[in-house]
Amino acid sequence: MTTIGFIGLGVMGAPMARNLLAAGHVVTAHNRSPGKVAEFVAAGGRGAETVAEAMTGAEIVITMLPDSPDVTAVMAGPDGVIANAPAGALVIDMSTIRPDVARGLAAQATAAGLRFLDAPASGGEAAAVDGNLSVMVGGETADLAAARPVLEVLGATIVHVGPAGSGQTVKAANQLIVAGNLELLAEALTFLDAHGVDLSAALQVLGGGLAGSTVLQRKGPAMLGREFSPGFRLALHHKDLSIFTDAARESNVVAPLGALVASLVASMTAQNLGHLDHCALLLLVEQLSGRQPADHAKES
Amino acid sequence: MTTIGFIGLGVMGAPMARNLLAAGHVVTAHNRSPGKVAEFVAAGGRGAETVAEAMTGAEIVITMLPDSPDVTAVMAGPDGVIANAPAGALVIDMSTIRPDVARGLAAQATAAGLRFLDAPASGGEAAAVDGNLSVMVGGETADLAAARPVLEVLGATIVHVGPAGSGQTVKAANQLIVAGNLELLAEALTFLDAHGVDLSAALQVLGGGLAGSTVLQRKGPAMLGREFSPGFRLALHHKDLSIFTDAARESNVVAPLGALVASLVASMTAQNLGHLDHCALLLLVEQLSGRQPADHAKES
Amino acid sequence: MTTIGFIGLGVMGAPMARNLLAAGHVVTAHNRSPGKVAEFVAAGGRGAETVAEAMTGAEIVITMLPDSPDVTAVMAGPDGVIANAPAGALVIDMSTIRPDVARGLAAQATAAGLRFLDAPASGGEAAAVDGNLSVMVGGETADLAAARPVLEVLGATIVHVGPAGSGQTVKAANQLIVAGNLELLAEALTFLDAHGVDLSAALQVLGGGLAGSTVLQRKGPAMLGREFSPGFRLALHHKDLSIFTDAARESNVVAPLGALVASLVASMTAQNLGHLDHCALLLLVEQLSGRQPADHAKES
Amino acid sequence: MTTIGFIGLGVMGAPMARNLLAAGHVVTAHNRSPGKVAEFVAAGGRGAETVAEAMTGAEIVITMLPDSPDVTAVMAGPDGVIANAPAGALVIDMSTIRPDVARGLAAQATAAGLRFLDAPASGGEAAAVDGNLSVMVGGETADLAAARPVLEVLGATIVHVGPAGSGQTVKAANQLIVAGNLELLAEALTFLDAHGVDLSAALQVLGGGLAGSTVLQRKGPAMLGREFSPGFRLALHHKDLSIFTDAARESNVVAPLGALVASLVASMTAQNLGHLDHCALLLLVEQLSGRQPADHAKES
Repeated sequence: MTTIGFIGLGVMGAPMARNLLAAGHVVTAHNRSPGKVAEFVAAGGRGAETVAEAMTGAEIVITMLPDSPDVTAVMAGPDGVIANAPAGALVIDMSTIRPDVARGLAAQATAAGLRFLDAPASGGEAAAVDGNLSVMVGGETADLAAARPVLEVLGATIVHVGPAGSGQTVKAANQLIVAGNLELLAEALTFLDAHGVDLSAALQVLGGGLAGSTVLQRKGPAMLGREFSPGFRLALHHKDLSIFTDAARESNVVAPLGALVASLVASMTAQNLGHLDHCALLLLVEQLSGRQPADHAKES
Repeated sequence: MTTIGFIGLGVMGAPMARNLLAAGHVVTAHNRSPGKVAEFVAAGGRGAETVAEAMTGAEIVITMLPDSPDVTAVMAGPDGVIANAPAGALVIDMSTIRPDVARGLAAQATAAGLRFLDAPASGGEAAAVDGNLSVMVGGETADLAAARPVLEVLGATIVHVGPAGSGQTVKAANQLIVAGNLELLAEALTFLDAHGVDLSAALQVLGGGLAGSTVLQRKGPAMLGREFSPGFRLALHHKDLSIFTDAARESNVVAPLGALVASLVASMTAQNLGHLDHCALLLLVEQLSGRQPADHAKES
Repeated sequence: MTTIGFIGLGVMGAPMARNLLAAGHVVTAHNRSPGKVAEFVAAGGRGAETVAEAMTGAEIVITMLPDSPDVTAVMAGPDGVIANAPAGALVIDMSTIRPDVARGLAAQATAAGLRFLDAPASGGEAAAVDGNLSVMVGGETADLAAARPVLEVLGATIVHVGPAGSGQTVKAANQLIVAGNLELLAEALTFLDAHGVDLSAALQVLGGGLAGSTVLQRKGPAMLGREFSPGFRLALHHKDLSIFTDAARESNVVAPLGALVASLVASMTAQNLGHLDHCALLLLVEQLSGRQPADHAKES
Repeated sequence: MTTIGFIGLGVMGAPMARNLLAAGHVVTAHNRSPGKVAEFVAAGGRGAETVAEAMTGAEIVITMLPDSPDVTAVMAGPDGVIANAPAGALVIDMSTIRPDVARGLAAQATAAGLRFLDAPASGGEAAAVDGNLSVMVGGETADLAAARPVLEVLGATIVHVGPAGSGQTVKAANQLIVAGNLELLAEALTFLDAHGVDLSAALQVLGGGLAGSTVLQRKGPAMLGREFSPGFRLALHHKDLSIFTDAARESNVVAPLGALVASLVASMTAQNLGHLDHCALLLLVEQLSGRQPADHAKES
């Protein structure tokens, strides 16, 4: 039984905090909008009105927030995690943020006598609910060893990928591959549809060979069924690809497909379709191919 | 037991013909270079010095050749398959060729009183040896029903995807997705390496989430081990992406990622690296990122 | 005074033929739709009901047709230019077609005892009317010397760029640069507009520095004025970029910007906007950027 | 006669400061490395050991520095321009920096009782020497009116393009168009060379039509002559394209060609070729096309 301070009860954070509760941990949660805290208290957890209050007695602190500025805001300042967490506490940021920001926070936390892991996760809401996330962890080996019993409540695959920031770097690469796979599948399905192929049969045989992927298996049927409600919103994927693009540029890595798919995802948000699931990239390929306006989904 | 005429004993065709033999069929094989025929005869098969000779008594004809002109040459003319196959024979072209050429050959074969299926396969040499190919079939349902017992010797997944030409269309889409996946993985690994991440650990956690794919599982370790001997040669993938690009253009499908990845694969062949396995796209990303000249593989 | 057979009285061909007439040459013209021939006769020219008839007594034959198959059809067969032109006649194809087709026609014409130049032109309808075309000529130096007095009626810049087919190769490169320049300008203007910049002032200062170009000077104001009537239709530019793309592939030249801009122009035709001037690429950038649907021009 | 404080005596700044001197202005210059100041004093100017010292009596302050952080450093702090310029002085930043940084500096300067223009220039070293720059100015109309007599010493084209930051926005668009034009020309010349075309003749005819541009005219012969010494270094162009890319993303503008050409320029710097003139993009196209290794220029 571990005493855990938990910040961020959003789509991902809320089920994660409940799973920790169900596993017998003492979890004190804070969220900017208090309604989510009330739901968590109703489910048997403890609520905190401030970040500082959630730090009381915490052995482990977990943050699950939308973007780099949110995490920075929660960590820093006299009311933040770093100033208020008990000495020696282990802070685990599971948000998807910039690797350089993660490295900076790790340095600040360490300087303040805390321990820090960056531990973003993939798998989406379903995996958060099922405790089946894939977690990519950057930081000290010993700190991951200490965190592992808690992280294993949240995810089935917990992998140490390198020093501070490495978890975020791997998450950025993950988001590149996922976006690219979705766009490739969208181009393939539009191509097949234009040639009068049986799309369900095509998905079956493509999935059985070297073209098979988790994206094809999970998102192919959603594309065929035109089921574009999230899931994982394009607006968030746009943010994640900006992280990849910036980090690639800073390290002199040239990723032409990455640059192009980032442009295509950016187009979806620019066209006010960022609220759709990322498999709605299909709509963009159909728009470019003159098969359907991209805003088709708005009408339904 | 079926009497089969088999044309093309290359890297893929030779093990396929031997598997048909092992399943008890009567197989008469022809190949342009006679050495391959001699090997097949030594393995218990029947050899034919000409295409026409291989047609003798054939109920089913299978062709497995490199490219559209090869298949057209073998099918057409007074010495070809169409002029010499017995009336009502079922011709199955398992080569990867242009969908429009496949449709044309289907029309010619039908006009000559034959039946025709386009049935390209994915899975590569290993799957050809193991009888584990994925076969995507275009043509008449009844003809596939007749062909199925023979095709099931060669592949585990045999899927009817639509009318004549559809098998080739799906194969083109397959090659798009595979090339795109390889390039995305190459960009991701170069990015992770530049940031000092543990690449084996990264592959493990990426494979466990939405970024997982058959390409990542099979070709990721090859990239890390710098194992670029084929496998599937970039020169062939270049040809296949040209098929995709042309067929997309003809059907007004706009595939930006497809166009770009076709350029990148074309660069590998232009740089005289077409003999390497397609996972050698890693070398191009490393070259563009200033991490290593693309011709590194030549030196080993 | 030269006796000229002229095939193709379209948007470009009609004013060219009239300019030749005005310069004192004897011009016999044929066109598939006879109305254009009647107009030419009314303007003082001679009309021909067939290609063969237009060859009567011709010292020089000029063809100005939409695409490779059109030129091939007019040249070949018992009723074509090659079979009917007088021995030693000089055939000048001024259409924009595939370089390999041009080389093939040159070989056929030469084998038939004729001379052949490929001499595509840039400058558009206005330059055709004004006799101000830029003409890029492939073929024998002596043949261009013979053709020059006639070509100088049509254009101000007549340049010999290499052996047979070279004129078409340079025209393909011309179309690449023009399309790329239009797309770059469209991206720049959309970017500037989004940032509240004075677009007319920006065009002025951009044109005065290293960013200056004929495209910026002629098409920038058209973009600002949203004047998308042709000019040069996107559908034709799409055809021309296909010529570039295919010829680049055949010669192992990797042109990433070329491949991408070809995709973008293809999207305009796929979206049924191929009838607009090529500066309407602005609409595509605005569409992708969520600033305006691409079919805006349809409504006006 | 105006009293001018001038910060930054680099490749561009040094000739600009001398031109101001020659026009009769009183110019006090500061540079981080003092050798440049000594040269300026030897040429008749006044030297300042600190930024603050250069502000003494200044009616106009001009800064010409490499990048956003340099300008920010010189402007801010107790020793900076803003704290030390006389009340009401007009600060003109002619560096190429981020538009958002320019807007921020304008706000700070205004709050401190100064006036501010962002006035980046194009034309390169030659135009700086000749007083022939194109200057794109963002800020208040009245401030440009006050600055114009001084700016006209430096440039032939001085255009007001909008409010604060607009000059930098137009400069970013300028750099997009120039980079794109260079890459298109590199692709075209590689394509023409592969087809055996006479490249000088091709440049002549391309320049005479719609493909004509200042880049083609000035940089085409340099590419043919393989003259890659700067001129304008790829490393600086890489920085400028990052400014464009970031500003486009922030304003939801999708620029696919811009994203791709930024990747290609990034590859040149990643391959340690950032010291070459930007027309060395030719080497990248030749590398991708297998015609020559990109590091060819290193050997000469």
